[in-house]
Amino acid sequence: MTLDTFFQAKSIAVIGASREPGKIGHTIVKNLVSGGYTGKIYPVNPNATDILGRKCYPSLSAVQEPVELAVICVPAAIIFPVVKNVIKKKVNAVIVITSGFKEIGNHRDEMKLARMFKKAKIPCIGPNCLGVFDAHTKLDTLFLPIERLKRPQAGTISFISQSGALGSAMLDLAAAAGLGFAKFVSYGNAADVNENHLLDYLDADEQTRVICLYIEGLADGKEFMRVARKVRKPVVVIKGGHSAQGSKAALSHTGSIAGESGIYSGAFKQTGLIEVDDLEDMFGIAHVFEKLAVTPRGKRVQIITNGGGHGIVTTDAVAANHLLFAELSANSNQVLKKNLPAICSIANPLDIVGDATAERFILAVSTCLKDPKVDALVVNILPQTPTVDHDKAAQALQKMNITKPVVLVTTGGEFAARVTRKYEAIGLPVYQYPSQAVKALAAYVSRSIA
Amino acid sequence: MTLDTFFQAKSIAVIGASREPGKIGHTIVKNLVSGGYTGKIYPVNPNATDILGRKCYPSLSAVQEPVELAVICVPAAIIFPVVKNVIKKKVNAVIVITSGFKEIGNHRDEMKLARMFKKAKIPCIGPNCLGVFDAHTKLDTLFLPIERLKRPQAGTISFISQSGALGSAMLDLAAAAGLGFAKFVSYGNAADVNENHLLDYLDADEQTRVICLYIEGLADGKEFMRVARKVRKPVVVIKGGHSAQGSKAALSHTGSIAGESGIYSGAFKQTGLIEVDDLEDMFGIAHVFEKLAVTPRGKRVQIITNGGGHGIVTTDAVAANHLLFAELSANSNQVLKKNLPAICSIANPLDIVGDATAERFILAVSTCLKDPKVDALVVNILPQTPTVDHDKAAQALQKMNITKPVVLVTTGGEFAARVTRKYEAIGLPVYQYPSQAVKALAAYVSRSIA
Repeated sequence: MTLDTFFQAKSIAVIGASREPGKIGHTIVKNLVSGGYTGKIYPVNPNATDILGRKCYPSLSAVQEPVELAVICVPAAIIFPVVKNVIKKKVNAVIVITSGFKEIGNHRDEMKLARMFKKAKIPCIGPNCLGVFDAHTKLDTLFLPIERLKRPQAGTISFISQSGALGSAMLDLAAAAGLGFAKFVSYGNAADVNENHLLDYLDADEQTRVICLYIEGLADGKEFMRVARKVRKPVVVIKGGHSAQGSKAALSHTGSIAGESGIYSGAFKQTGLIEVDDLEDMFGIAHVFEKLAVTPRGKRVQIITNGGGHGIVTTDAVAANHLLFAELSANSNQVLKKNLPAICSIANPLDIVGDATAERFILAVSTCLKDPKVDALVVNILPQTPTVDHDKAAQALQKMNITKPVVLVTTGGEFAARVTRKYEAIGLPVYQYPSQAVKALAAYVSRSIA
Repeated sequence: MTLDTFFQAKSIAVIGASREPGKIGHTIVKNLVSGGYTGKIYPVNPNATDILGRKCYPSLSAVQEPVELAVICVPAAIIFPVVKNVIKKKVNAVIVITSGFKEIGNHRDEMKLARMFKKAKIPCIGPNCLGVFDAHTKLDTLFLPIERLKRPQAGTISFISQSGALGSAMLDLAAAAGLGFAKFVSYGNAADVNENHLLDYLDADEQTRVICLYIEGLADGKEFMRVARKVRKPVVVIKGGHSAQGSKAALSHTGSIAGESGIYSGAFKQTGLIEVDDLEDMFGIAHVFEKLAVTPRGKRVQIITNGGGHGIVTTDAVAANHLLFAELSANSNQVLKKNLPAICSIANPLDIVGDATAERFILAVSTCLKDPKVDALVVNILPQTPTVDHDKAAQALQKMNITKPVVLVTTGGEFAARVTRKYEAIGLPVYQYPSQAVKALAAYVSRSIA
C-alpha cells in the first residue's frame, strides 16, 4: 500500500463541503484554497453551486475529471452512499473525517467502512480524524481555521498522532517555535491505515528525517514491533495513558486498550524508539534530529559558556543524562591558555566569562571541535551582554566544518529569540534551557553510541 | 539589619558612572534614568560634568544632599578610597558591582571590604554582582541594557540569585513570559548581605508572595537552616552543582564549596523548601503561587478537557505527581448528565469534547468547584476550535467564587498565547503543557496537605 496520494494528490474532492463558515466542510475547503495547496479542489454538496468561488458539484460522479483523493466529512448517518460513490469514482485514497464510529461504540459501521475500502483496495485514513497536513505540498485536511491553528513551515519532522486535538495543538505550538515539518497525520480510529503503515511509509519518505508519534494504543502490537524494529529513522514516542489511570482514560477516548505501561516501555526500548514522558520533551528531542546530521563518535561532552551559573547547571544536566565529560587535550589547553584572558576558566565547563566576545566564542568552539578528546559540544551563549557580535559569531560557525554534535543554549526573552533565529538559520539547534539541550543531545548521541 | 534601602532608596549615587555607552557605569545610570525610577540620581565621576543630561559630581563628598544608596562600579584597584567616602557620607546601603575579589582568589580585599562596611554598620550587597531590580519602585542596578534584558512587570515573585548572568537571563525570560515580579537580587560574593538575610527580608516583604532561589553554595549552612525553617512563604530553590561534576564547577565559579547534593536536598526537604532540578521548573512552580491564594483541602484532582488526548496526558501527570483522582459526587454526575451532550464523558477526566462551548466549560468548572469530593481542578482549554467564546468563559470564571486551586492548560502558538492572557488576566495560572500545570499544582497542594 503506498500512501503517497495522501500527501501528494493533485486533485481533491471534499464531500460534505459547506458554504457556512465554521462548518467542518467549509474550513477544509477554505484551508485548501487559501493555504497554498496548488492542486485541483472539487467541493461536493448537492445544495450549493459554488463554495468560496470554486464550482461545487452535486455529487462526486458529476466531477468529470479524475479525482485522486476524496475527503469525506458528511454526517455518519449518510456516509455509506457517499462511500459507494467514492469507490465507483476509483479515487486513489480516502480520508474519512466523519466521527460516530468505534469511538462511540459503533463498531459495526466502522467494520463495514473498513471492509468496503479494503475490498476496493483504496487506502483510507480515519474515520474520526483530522487527516493530514503536508508542509511541503500544503495538502491540508485539518478542519481547524489557520488563524487559530498555525501550520508549521516546511522541514523534516513528521508527526503521527492518534489524538487529533492533541496533535493539532502540538502542531500549532511547533509553528510558533519555528520547527520545520514534513508531514502530520491524525489517523483517528485507524479502521484501515494505522500507525504501522504510517511509520513504515515515513521511514522511506525522503522529506522526513525524524518521526514523532503520539499513541494511546496499538492497532496490532506484533506488527508494531516488526515495523518499529525495521525503522531506521529516529522515532520519538509518547504513550498517552502510561499510568493505570491514564490507561483507563485512553480506553474511553479512542477505545484503545492501552495495556500496561511497562510492556510499552519495554517494547519501545527493545525496538530502539525514544520514549518521552511529557509532551514538552517530544519536539525538543525531535529538534536535534531535525537540525543535526553528523555521526557522534562518543559521549564526551565539552561545555562552553559565557555565564558561570549556566555552566554549572549544564554540568548537572550532563551528569543527569548519563553523558561523559570531555577533558581537553594538552594542545587545546595550550591554545586556549595563550589566547583567552586569564579570567577565563579553561576546564569543563570552559567559561569564557560574561564579557566574552564573538572572537572568544569562535576560538572556544573551533578549538573544541578540533580536539580529538571531545565528542560533542553544549554552547551556552547568553545574549544579555552586548559584547558578543552574534552576526559575526554565527557567520564564523557556519564556515566551520562541524562534524560533531553541537547544541546551543540561549536563555531569555525577545532578544534571545532573535539570537536563537540567527543560529537556527545556520543549522544549529538552539534551546532555551540547558536541561532541554542536554536531554536532546543525549537522545541524539545515544542513537549511535550505546 | 533592614534591607529596605536596597529597594526603596529615594536617592542613589552611582560611583564610577561613565559617559561612554557600553560601560557598566553608563548602563546603570541609563537604566535608572530611562527605566522609570523616580528618585534622585547622582552620577559620580571626576572626569565628567554631566552624564545623560544629569549633573555629574567629581566625588561623593561633592553631593550636598543626603544619599541613601551608593552603587559602586569603579575598578577593584581603586575601590578603597571610594569605600571610605561612602562611609563618610553615611549612606544607608551600598551595592558593590565591582568584581576582582573572592571569585579570583582575592580574599584579602574582600574581607577588608566586608570589615569596613560592618564596622560602619552599612549593609552591603556584593561585590561581584548585578545588584537589585525592584519591579515596583524600578530601582534597578543591573548593568545590562534594557533592550537586551527586559525587566518583568510588577507582581509578587521575588528571585534571589547567586549567579548574576543566570539570574538576569531568567529575569529576561520571565519578562517575556509575562510573570509579575516584586524583587530580584544578584548578591554575588555575599561579603556582607547573603542569601539568609535576603530570605528573611523577603519573607516579611509585603509585595513578595513566593521566593525563587538559585544557589551554588551557602554562606552559613546552620543559619540557612534556621532561616529556611522560619520562612512562611513558599521558596522554590535550585541548587546549581547538585551533581559531583557540577559541584566542582561551582567551586571555580563562585568559590562555593557546593557540598554533596544529598545534604542539600535533605536540608531543603526538612525545612519545607521546594527543590527543583531544572531551571524550566522554577518559574513554572513559582507562577502557581504568584496567582493562587486559596487553601487546598486535599489532593483529589478533577480534570476537565475539551481534548481527549490532553485528558489522558493530564491523567498520567496527576499519577506521576502523586496527586489523587477525584470521583464526582452523585449530584455532580446528575447535573452534568442532564446538561451535557451524550457524547461527553462524565468521569475523570471530564471530557466535554472538541466542540465544547463556553457554556459547557462554565458548567463543568462550576459543578466541579461546588463538588465536596473535588479538591482541585486542572482545566485543559484547547483553543484551536472556534466553538469556545473565551471572553465569555473568562468573564464567567471571574465571577465564580473560586475557593479551590484551579490551573489551566492551553497548548499552542499565537492564538493560544492570546487566550492564555485572557485567563491570566482574571487571576488564573495558565500553562502550555499538562505536565507543567500538574507539577505546579502538586507543589501548591503539597505545601498545605502532607
